[in-house]
Amino acid sequence: MSSGKILVAQGGGPTAVINQSLVGVVLEARRHHGIQRVYGARHGVRGIVDEDFVDLTRETSQNLERVAATPAAALGSTRDKPDLAYCREMFKVLKAHAIGHFFNIGGNDSSDTVRIVAEQAQAAGYPLRCIHIPKTIDNDLVLNDHTPGFPSAARFVAQAFAGANLDNAALPGVYVGVVMGRHAGFLTAASALSRKYPDDGPHLIYLPERVFTVDQFLADVKAVHERLGRCVVAVSEGIHDAAGQPILAQLSKRNANDATKDLERDAHGNVQLSGSGALADRLCDQIKASLGIQRVRGDTFGYLQRSFLGCVSDVDQREAREVGEKAVQYAMWGRHGELRDGSVAIQRSGAYAADYTLLPLAAVAGKTRTMEDHFISASGTDVTDAFRLYLRPLLGSGMPEPFRLRPSPVPRLLRL
Amino acid sequence: MSSGKILVAQGGGPTAVINQSLVGVVLEARRHHGIQRVYGARHGVRGIVDEDFVDLTRETSQNLERVAATPAAALGSTRDKPDLAYCREMFKVLKAHAIGHFFNIGGNDSSDTVRIVAEQAQAAGYPLRCIHIPKTIDNDLVLNDHTPGFPSAARFVAQAFAGANLDNAALPGVYVGVVMGRHAGFLTAASALSRKYPDDGPHLIYLPERVFTVDQFLADVKAVHERLGRCVVAVSEGIHDAAGQPILAQLSKRNANDATKDLERDAHGNVQLSGSGALADRLCDQIKASLGIQRVRGDTFGYLQRSFLGCVSDVDQREAREVGEKAVQYAMWGRHGELRDGSVAIQRSGAYAADYTLLPLAAVAGKTRTMEDHFISASGTDVTDAFRLYLRPLLGSGMPEPFRLRPSPVPRLLRL
Repeated sequence: MSSGKILVAQGGGPTAVINQSLVGVVLEARRHHGIQRVYGARHGVRGIVDEDFVDLTRETSQNLERVAATPAAALGSTRDKPDLAYCREMFKVLKAHAIGHFFNIGGNDSSDTVRIVAEQAQAAGYPLRCIHIPKTIDNDLVLNDHTPGFPSAARFVAQAFAGANLDNAALPGVYVGVVMGRHAGFLTAASALSRKYPDDGPHLIYLPERVFTVDQFLADVKAVHERLGRCVVAVSEGIHDAAGQPILAQLSKRNANDATKDLERDAHGNVQLSGSGALADRLCDQIKASLGIQRVRGDTFGYLQRSFLGCVSDVDQREAREVGEKAVQYAMWGRHGELRDGSVAIQRSGAYAADYTLLPLAAVAGKTRTMEDHFISASGTDVTDAFRLYLRPLLGSGMPEPFRLRPSPVPRLLRL
Repeated sequence: MSSGKILVAQGGGPTAVINQSLVGVVLEARRHHGIQRVYGARHGVRGIVDEDFVDLTRETSQNLERVAATPAAALGSTRDKPDLAYCREMFKVLKAHAIGHFFNIGGNDSSDTVRIVAEQAQAAGYPLRCIHIPKTIDNDLVLNDHTPGFPSAARFVAQAFAGANLDNAALPGVYVGVVMGRHAGFLTAASALSRKYPDDGPHLIYLPERVFTVDQFLADVKAVHERLGRCVVAVSEGIHDAAGQPILAQLSKRNANDATKDLERDAHGNVQLSGSGALADRLCDQIKASLGIQRVRGDTFGYLQRSFLGCVSDVDQREAREVGEKAVQYAMWGRHGELRDGSVAIQRSGAYAADYTLLPLAAVAGKTRTMEDHFISASGTDVTDAFRLYLRPLLGSGMPEPFRLRPSPVPRLLRL
């Protein structure tokens, strides 16, 4: 059937459950007599080019189970985005090691890498099967109901806003929490799942799917603060103006001498959004300067939302495990008609069960899903019931729930 | 014995377990026939001056148990720091409602308030007993082994750094995490409890108990980065120079046109440290500018570390409950010699059990504990084993633990 050697790699931002998928591949491979060796590439595609492999065949199933429950990427990850020349180097190494199957766990960049490597192998007549295994907290892979990693990050965001809302109710003021997500607002929208009582925050949710204007933002905050005496706001790091310019860049430019004017940009010229508290701070500055509200506090959830040890959705855990298992099954049993290579996808069945399929790589690779219109309220600053129904089952069991004292005022004696 | 009316209030920054202490007071009071009514003051001492009380006698024990498990302050909190005139107003209201016992849950400001109110009552010959119930994530109350709220916040910080360390190992670079604590470094020091493997971060820990210099910081980070190819740093928001000036203020001044130059100050002229990502951002700017390291990311844990719903120490929960229960017992049974008023304190027995005592208010009020020297390593950038032994039992049961793949390199075929 093949050389009996398979290779697995992890790419992009770590998640709470990407190691579940890795372990799903390794443990499922142990069932298949056609597989003699399972190699792991250290730091993703970079480890392939560098020929930096570990032999996962030698790992105990006991330790693999513990690693599966550990967040981040056990093999190491990379931000490298391979071009054609890079993929050719990768293919050279895969061929030298007689790798028969290549599994790459990651987001849309990773799926695109899988697509190019598969094309290289086919052009060279080399019998390599390439499978992309989905992973991203951004939930932005097309044709997937959702992506592994998103539910756990969404749970962190919901639990964080539930607590921030309680804190804000105890010491009133304005609270701005900035959530990851450059193009897709799913993770920011998850903040809505923290609400229980009618006046719970977040009272305003700003998504990259809608145009952001500072003036409207200030008017929205003012209205909520006047109504409730406090205001909790969820903001996506990817909010932008009508021209698509990030609000972070716009606010930094307003303040021409700001230390953040030299914004870090990645290889694609995108402004670095994560790893800094600048957006929350600039938005708080605006509120203080324009609305005269005394207590204005900003938090940037940063890397905690994707790495925090001990906040995970059990539904996410088992699905992440399954996409790894299914990837090996698809590769070894070659179902799904003529599909040789592909991208494993999660599909929703009923309310709620998960099922899996294998999609053509070209259907997923390099494409970005954003929040569908029916998930966003008409106001543009909230989600719909459809979104709540969509997300709730993914958050898993044991979601902590806040409780309040019921009102029972004591009649005043002095101030009548 | 008394009028049969008691009043309880919550003050200062919310914690994960302050409602346990509130519920400890309310449920313990139900056992005492001398108590007919339990009032709660809304938003701390502010609610006393405003005569804004709720009748907790009417709350169900079922809901009280749920509220106990909810973070933040169920009665609402306040940042008001009563002076003599303010305390006289409070006393006037307590007298009007014939309150026999006043319980105030909070940190050293709250204990000082209790002290002044008790003095007022004694001077007026009014039979009021005043008990301070300890609470603060800063762990800075003197004569307490530790304070309720600190263990849960410490657990959050440890879990956050465990995840941040894994993330940093997967995508190497420098990571700076800023933790709350103006004068006391206990909470920042808790980051050390996240380490498991020998090269785990945080590799450097900066506490307000030691003088911080930017040059030494940069040299420290450079050395770790050269050794490990990565570096995780825990920084207290309260780090300061030899003159006691906050580093945030110093770094903002260096950058004379910085948007943060107008630093917010509180009533005491202290620079506002929390609720902004400025310190992490400025430290990251320094590292990028001076060390030429590409991937430098900063997080500020902000309000998440004291409010996050679903990260709590069970030891902290039960101790916070007990200090509330003990407060009522001390008040009703008047043990501890002649002590009429007092501050409940936690004492450590063996390894590990907790016990309680009642201290004179003057012994605790307005005093600040900082980390003892034997808890800080000679380098000044780490903690000692004594600190690890001190903190570990407080973090409670079920601490999540990270696991790694064991090394098993595959021999190279192309790059020999």
